[in-house]
Amino acid sequence: MITGKNYIGKDKRGASGKTFKTFNPLANSENKILFSEASDKEIDEAVALAWEAFQEYRNTSGADKSIFLNAIADEIEALGDILIETYCSESGLAPGRAMGERGRTLFQLRSFADLVKEGDWVEVSIDTAQPKREPIPKPDIRKMMIPLGPVVVFGASNFPLAYSTAGGDTAAALAAGCPVVVKSHPMHAGTGELIASAIIRAAERTGMPNGVFSNLNSSGIEVGVRLVQHPGIKAVGFTGSIAGGRALYDLAAKRKEPIPVFAEMGSVNPVVFLPEALKKRGGSLAATYASSVTLGVGQFCTNPGLLLGIKGKSLDHFIEKLAEAIVEIEPGCMLHPNIIGAYEANKSKALSQEGIEMVSQYTNELQVNYARQAVTRVEGLTFLQNTTLHQEVFGPFTMVVQCDDKAQLEAIVQSLEGQLTGTLIAEDHELSGYGGVIDALKNRVGRIIYNGVPTGVEVCPSMVHGGPYPASTDSRFTAVGIHSIKRWIRPFSYQDWPNQLLPDALKNENPLGITRLVNNVLTKDGI
Amino acid sequence: MITGKNYIGKDKRGASGKTFKTFNPLANSENKILFSEASDKEIDEAVALAWEAFQEYRNTSGADKSIFLNAIADEIEALGDILIETYCSESGLAPGRAMGERGRTLFQLRSFADLVKEGDWVEVSIDTAQPKREPIPKPDIRKMMIPLGPVVVFGASNFPLAYSTAGGDTAAALAAGCPVVVKSHPMHAGTGELIASAIIRAAERTGMPNGVFSNLNSSGIEVGVRLVQHPGIKAVGFTGSIAGGRALYDLAAKRKEPIPVFAEMGSVNPVVFLPEALKKRGGSLAATYASSVTLGVGQFCTNPGLLLGIKGKSLDHFIEKLAEAIVEIEPGCMLHPNIIGAYEANKSKALSQEGIEMVSQYTNELQVNYARQAVTRVEGLTFLQNTTLHQEVFGPFTMVVQCDDKAQLEAIVQSLEGQLTGTLIAEDHELSGYGGVIDALKNRVGRIIYNGVPTGVEVCPSMVHGGPYPASTDSRFTAVGIHSIKRWIRPFSYQDWPNQLLPDALKNENPLGITRLVNNVLTKDGI
Repeated sequence: MITGKNYIGKDKRGASGKTFKTFNPLANSENKILFSEASDKEIDEAVALAWEAFQEYRNTSGADKSIFLNAIADEIEALGDILIETYCSESGLAPGRAMGERGRTLFQLRSFADLVKEGDWVEVSIDTAQPKREPIPKPDIRKMMIPLGPVVVFGASNFPLAYSTAGGDTAAALAAGCPVVVKSHPMHAGTGELIASAIIRAAERTGMPNGVFSNLNSSGIEVGVRLVQHPGIKAVGFTGSIAGGRALYDLAAKRKEPIPVFAEMGSVNPVVFLPEALKKRGGSLAATYASSVTLGVGQFCTNPGLLLGIKGKSLDHFIEKLAEAIVEIEPGCMLHPNIIGAYEANKSKALSQEGIEMVSQYTNELQVNYARQAVTRVEGLTFLQNTTLHQEVFGPFTMVVQCDDKAQLEAIVQSLEGQLTGTLIAEDHELSGYGGVIDALKNRVGRIIYNGVPTGVEVCPSMVHGGPYPASTDSRFTAVGIHSIKRWIRPFSYQDWPNQLLPDALKNENPLGITRLVNNVLTKDGI
Repeated sequence: MITGKNYIGKDKRGASGKTFKTFNPLANSENKILFSEASDKEIDEAVALAWEAFQEYRNTSGADKSIFLNAIADEIEALGDILIETYCSESGLAPGRAMGERGRTLFQLRSFADLVKEGDWVEVSIDTAQPKREPIPKPDIRKMMIPLGPVVVFGASNFPLAYSTAGGDTAAALAAGCPVVVKSHPMHAGTGELIASAIIRAAERTGMPNGVFSNLNSSGIEVGVRLVQHPGIKAVGFTGSIAGGRALYDLAAKRKEPIPVFAEMGSVNPVVFLPEALKKRGGSLAATYASSVTLGVGQFCTNPGLLLGIKGKSLDHFIEKLAEAIVEIEPGCMLHPNIIGAYEANKSKALSQEGIEMVSQYTNELQVNYARQAVTRVEGLTFLQNTTLHQEVFGPFTMVVQCDDKAQLEAIVQSLEGQLTGTLIAEDHELSGYGGVIDALKNRVGRIIYNGVPTGVEVCPSMVHGGPYPASTDSRFTAVGIHSIKRWIRPFSYQDWPNQLLPDALKNENPLGITRLVNNVLTKDGI
C-alpha cells in the first residue's frame, strides 16, 4: 500500500505538513495520493539511523549481504501488478517498458548479490613480513576495500526502477556495505515508496540493521540539499541533468569534509557516419537511427542527439530517409508536463540559432504530453562556432551536422564536451583513413561503439556508463555494471595486525576462498 | 648543471624576470643559484606541449613506458653526488637520509616499470557477444583502464625526492600514460631541476614524445593556481598542508570541467596505548616513541602527534620516560626557516590553549633552524572540548591525552578528523575489551598498525597512504604503492569493435599475455 509517508528505516513519518502529488501524463491529471515532504527532523533522523546502522552493516559478511540483496529482488517481484500500474501511472511509459525495467532492476540486484557472495571485489593484497630485511625489517601489510559510509541516492526521472530507489546506485552501495538514504524522485514517488517498502521488508526479513535503508520524499530541492550537506553522509549518487548534478557536486565540494559525488549527467552521444557506410547502407542506417532517436520517447541518457557526416549525396540521402522514417514513428507520451515543457523549450532554443534547419518534425495532431520527434540539420562551421548547438535536447530530437571534410569532422569531435558514448558507423576498409577522428572520439567518451546504436546499456562487468565531464562528475568510475561498486569503497591497510582479529578476507588461511594478491602474485592459496 | 630555468619539455626557459633562491638551513644562508619563476606563457606552453605529447604517449606500450621509467631511475642514479649535495644544501637533511630517499625514489620508479611491463594493471574485462540472446542480442563489450590526460604534480617540502619531481605521483602518472607537469617546490628547486634534467634525458634517450614531462619553478602560489585552472590539465597530485591541498581542491572543483585532486595532507596519527601494554612495556614504548616523534625532525606526515591512554600510574610512568627520552635526543635542523617558524607558531598556539601542559622540551642551546622536540599532555575532557588541540603541529612534537576511562577514549577517537594512520599498542589478551575503540579508530584512518609506529611507509602493493578527509581529499585512493596509479586512470569500453583495431590488451588472442576477466572469469587464455 502506498502511504505517502517517508521511511526512516522501518518507521513511516510525515510530519512536515508539506505535501505533493504525482502526475499521470497519459491521463493528463494528478494522481490521488498525497506524499509528505520529508521534514528537517526526519532527514536528520534518517541519516543518524544510517550512521548507526553502518557500524553493524559495514561488518556484515558478503554471504549475508548477498541474501539481503536477493531478498530485495524477491520482494520487488512479489509486489506484482501494483508496481507496474503505479509505474505507468506516474511515467506515461508502457507496461512492457515497466516490466523490462523491472527485469533489469532485479538482474542488477542479483548481480551484486553474486558479486559480494563470491567476494573477490574487496581486492585483497597481502605483503607478508620480512623480519630480517636490511636495513629495517619489512612489516606485514594487508589491504582490502571497505565501505565509505552512508550514501545518498537521487532517483532519476527517466528510469523509475533501474536508476532509482533500488537501482544501480542503491544496489552497488548496499553491496559495498554502505547504508542508503534515497531522495525519491517526485515524479514517481509512489513507485519509489513501493520499492522502498520492498527493501525495508527484505532488510527486516534477513536481519539487517534498521536504518540500512531510508526513503525520503520531496518535490523541490531542499531535502536533497540538506542530505548532501549532512556530515553523516559520505558519498552521493545522482542520475539526471547537468544543472542538477553540478549543483550537488558544488554543494559536496564546499563541505567542511568534501565527499565524492558520482553524477551521471547529460550527453548528446555523437555518432560519426563515414562516407562508405553511408553510401552502402544509408537507407537501413536511417531506419535504425530513427528507432534509436525515438526509443523511450528519446528519454535515454544515451540517446543519439548528434549525427556527424561529411557533405555529399550519401549524407543528403541519409538525412532524407531519416526524416521520412522518423515522422512515420508513432509519437509517445513524455514522463511529465515539466519534461515535455523542457523538451519544447530546448528544441525552440536550438531552432532559434542561426543556421539550423528543421528537416522534419511530426506534424499530425497529438494528445497532450506527447512529443513530436524531430530531425534538424546544420553546417559544420555553424556548429563549430555556436556551442549552444552542442547542448542536449532531452527527448526524441537529433541534429545532423554536415561537415565540409574530414578535417572539419575531426575538429568538431575535438570541440565536443565529454560524452557517455561515441559511435562510429563505417565500412571496415575505410577505417584506416580516419585514425584522427577515431582518436578524437575516444578522448571525449566513456564507451565507443562500432556499427551499432548508443541506446541500450548492457549490464555487464565490461560496461562503462560514465565519461569525461559533463557526462559524469568523475570519469574514473562507471555507474552501470558490478564495477560501479568502486564508487562507494576505499582501500584500508592493516599493518602487523593479529591474524585472529583480521577480517576473514585477510586471514592467513583464506577462509573465504577468494582470489588475493599475495606478495604480488594472484592466488587462492592460504599463507 | 643547475641552470635555474624552467623545462618546457626539453627546452629551457626563463623569461619572466622574476627570480628566487633556495636556502641552506644548516648554513643559515641563501644558496647562490637564481631560479626563474615560470611565466604565464611558459605555463601555457608546458601544458600545450603536454597535451600534444598525450596524443602519442597514451598509446605508448607498457613495454616502452617501462623502459622509460627504468631509464629515469638510471639517469637519477647517474647524477651521483651532486644530487645528494644539492639535496642536503636545500633541506638541512643529512646525506644518509638523502641517499635513503633516493633509493626509495628509484625503487618506486622501477616498481612502476615492472607494473606496466607486466600489464595486468589495465584491469581488462571482456564480455563476449551473444548474438542469439532473447529478447535482444548481447553485444561484445571490452573494458580497460586508460590515462586521464596531463597531470600536475606539486612537489612536497619534506620529501625532496620521493614525493617530489620524480616521486610517487609522477612515477604513477607516467606509468599510467599521463604526461606530467611538475610545479617544483621552491625550497628545493635545485634538487628538482637535477631530477627534471634526468627525466628529460631519459625521455629523449628512450624516444618518448617531447612534453611528456615539464618542470616549472615558482616561489609563490600563482604558477600552481594557473596550472590547476588550465583546461589542458586533467588531474592534480599534491602532498603538503591541509590549507594548501584544500585550496587546490577548491580551485579544481570550481573549474568549468572539474578535475580530480588527490591531495595527501595533514594527520596527527593517533596512537592508542592500552593499559596492560603500558604496564608491561611502558619504558621501552617510551624510547620507541621518542625516536618515532623525532625521526626526520618530526617532518613526516605519519609523525605520531597524538598519544592516547587511560589515566593511571602506568600512563604517568610512560609520560615521564617519554619526556626523559625525548630531551636526550640530539635536535635536528628543520627544512627551512619558514618550517621552523611554523613549528614554533603552531606549538605556541597549542600551548596557549587552556589545560595543556608542557611536560618536557629540549632546553639546551641550539643552532639556528634547529627544532626543540617537545612532549605535552592534556586531560581527555579538555582535548574533547577544544578542537584547536586536534590540529597538527608539524615537527618533533607530541601530545599525550590522559583519558578518564575507556568510554572517553572511544569518544575522543570518534571525535578525531580523518587520519592517515591509527596505531594500537596492546597486549593480545586485552584486545577483546576494546572493540569499540578499535572500531572507532578504523573509521577514522587509512592504515591501522598493531604494536608498531606509524612512521615508515612501506612501498608495497598493500600499502594505503591516504585516508578520510583531511588526511586526503579522496579516501578512495592511496598515494603510495603501485595501486596509486588508479588515481590517474579511467575505465573505457569498446562495443563491437573490430579485433584488429582494439588495443593489444583487449585483442582476442591476448598478445600481451595478461590476466583478464573474460565473461566474469579470470584467465590468461585467448578468446
